[in-house]
Amino acid sequence: MSSETLALAKDLIARHSVTPEDAGCQALMAERLGAVGFDNESLRFEDVDNLWSVHGQGGPLLVFAGHTDVVPTGDEKHWTFPPFEPTEHEGMLFGRGAADMKGSLAAMVVAAERFAKAHPNHRGRLAFLITSDEEGDAYNGTVRVVETLTERGEQIDWAVVGEPSSTNKVGDVIKNGRRGSMLGYLTIKGVQGHVAYPHLAKNPVHLVAPAIAALSTEVWDEGNDFFPATSFQISNINSGTGATNVIPGEAHIGFSFRFSTEVTAEELQRRTRVLLDQHGFDYELRFEVKGQPFLTERGALVQAATQAVEQVQGHATELSTAGGTSDGRFIAPTGAQVVELGPVNATIHKVNECVAIDDLDRLTEMYFAIMESLLVD
Amino acid sequence: MSSETLALAKDLIARHSVTPEDAGCQALMAERLGAVGFDNESLRFEDVDNLWSVHGQGGPLLVFAGHTDVVPTGDEKHWTFPPFEPTEHEGMLFGRGAADMKGSLAAMVVAAERFAKAHPNHRGRLAFLITSDEEGDAYNGTVRVVETLTERGEQIDWAVVGEPSSTNKVGDVIKNGRRGSMLGYLTIKGVQGHVAYPHLAKNPVHLVAPAIAALSTEVWDEGNDFFPATSFQISNINSGTGATNVIPGEAHIGFSFRFSTEVTAEELQRRTRVLLDQHGFDYELRFEVKGQPFLTERGALVQAATQAVEQVQGHATELSTAGGTSDGRFIAPTGAQVVELGPVNATIHKVNECVAIDDLDRLTEMYFAIMESLLVD
Ligand SMILES: [Zn+2]
Ligand SMILES: [Zn+2]
Repeated sequence: MSSETLALAKDLIARHSVTPEDAGCQALMAERLGAVGFDNESLRFEDVDNLWSVHGQGGPLLVFAGHTDVVPTGDEKHWTFPPFEPTEHEGMLFGRGAADMKGSLAAMVVAAERFAKAHPNHRGRLAFLITSDEEGDAYNGTVRVVETLTERGEQIDWAVVGEPSSTNKVGDVIKNGRRGSMLGYLTIKGVQGHVAYPHLAKNPVHLVAPAIAALSTEVWDEGNDFFPATSFQISNINSGTGATNVIPGEAHIGFSFRFSTEVTAEELQRRTRVLLDQHGFDYELRFEVKGQPFLTERGALVQAATQAVEQVQGHATELSTAGGTSDGRFIAPTGAQVVELGPVNATIHKVNECVAIDDLDRLTEMYFAIMESLLVD
Repeated sequence: MSSETLALAKDLIARHSVTPEDAGCQALMAERLGAVGFDNESLRFEDVDNLWSVHGQGGPLLVFAGHTDVVPTGDEKHWTFPPFEPTEHEGMLFGRGAADMKGSLAAMVVAAERFAKAHPNHRGRLAFLITSDEEGDAYNGTVRVVETLTERGEQIDWAVVGEPSSTNKVGDVIKNGRRGSMLGYLTIKGVQGHVAYPHLAKNPVHLVAPAIAALSTEVWDEGNDFFPATSFQISNINSGTGATNVIPGEAHIGFSFRFSTEVTAEELQRRTRVLLDQHGFDYELRFEVKGQPFLTERGALVQAATQAVEQVQGHATELSTAGGTSDGRFIAPTGAQVVELGPVNATIHKVNECVAIDDLDRLTEMYFAIMESLLVD
């Protein structure tokens, strides 16, 4: 049993698919799925490979979604095992993408193979929506595939995204929504000068300091039953010429909001400007909304996923909307129910990324159970 | 008359003496001074040329001090005339170093030539202390020459530094002291993390913002009759990995104090730490004292310099301690009286640096008057 998902995960990890490269991962998946009756469609947008693969007829439509691209490895010298040579060690499978999310992809494919064989005439359709542009810009990946499907009049009913949702044990957390995400780019306009003549200059760092203090302590909301409180974080600040005797003319700040459904992006933009305006300096400010918050309330999909975890693990799961963004933000606005269920995320995007080998099989069983629960009467 | 100082200034500007290069400027000056009876001594320390040139015997010792090095030109495309091709245009002499301070050097040399011819047996000694490391690190320039003189038991009585002290008309300001100068390097220690998980991180920019607000509004002192109030300025701040989704682990801040004689460097260091400690974050802080404040009160040198300006310009001059540091900070601690008197500083360190051609002659007359006033009975 275990060898199937593990073997496919290793095949996928061995491909150098650093974002936005796919490096043949989708071809491998398509070949496996095609062999059990899936119809494969390659959707390439710009430099990004996407795979849309469907089994069955009519509705409802259950989609397994994920990405073949991985984040860069950093300095490979810091890895115990080479990141693109999948290595089993003490019950773990090591390699870049082991947890995010080639392990999940392998589990999805193996579960689908078993499902297609066990239920060749299941109701509705089982589909795969796979991109190689989730870790990068995400401009030509899931969002473009979803646009294409919408143009065709396709309506996704349920989507299971294989992102590593779990904290300690596989399945202990299912994400049933995500916070909104918005970036801000702030330039404070001072007047450059020499430190010896401060009265002729306006120091933008001095000007903005109390505004940063106000923004970073502002209570934007209290969150709600499904979302933690909205959070503001400065990610980057730069000012100065490098010279020690020059008062800088501008300061540049990049910041990020992760926000709940208690506020809107527009409201946060307005309140940010009001706070800045209270501090009496010139500035330019630009916002970029990366994703609106979404929530999948209890329903057929959440029930199928929580039952699948309980059945495989023998314990209950927790619904959560915390954590980073995922491509679920592109699928949810179509009206689909969306959950994320995948491995433990402790090592993702780090050196020595790994996944428990046993968890690959458990995840395969969970995905199989969800397919049966939703597509078998 | 005018052609002599102008011609020498042009000869000096034509030499590409970007700090710490001398590019033959000192050899040219030494040749001119040697021809009227000065004894020249080259003092090279590491990669820096220095010239010590003396005329006469015994005390008192009057020194004209200056530097042959210039700051880089920046992009030469922004200059109306090539920076190392001295160009006369509408009464101004253009070129890098025209005001800071090759014009002053030319005026000193021409004044000394006239003085040596007019008063071959003047009392005491007239000397030149010239370096090519004022605009750079200043480790191997004036400070090393002063050390050498001190080892020899030489005591400088009066020093005239040719720095561009003037604001609108040559001689309108004489600097009779300088504020102290101290740099600080601050690293704030936070905890790096993902913006989606702010509770697992500590944002050093958020931590330090109220401390910056406090430091930049602190009244360090009120100054006194001779010095403006002590000033604190942040020159550089950097934090962040460049990624928009990472809470940075550290923030780096460089700042500068220009301080009066009402506080000491030690006191400012202590008070900075007290202020930072009130904000409850981990940090590392290092200080570098670049120069203690000094003051030359009214006496023979200040009187000679102010009279020289009044005699040439027909109006009074202003004594000031404002502005940037100069090599006077290295001479003053020996007990010498030190003033700075030179051209208008409006264009120094900028593109299209220039000096009024008439001012070169006026400055020559002022320097000559100071020599007569102090070394002729
Ligand atoms: Zn992922
Ligand atoms: Zn200078």
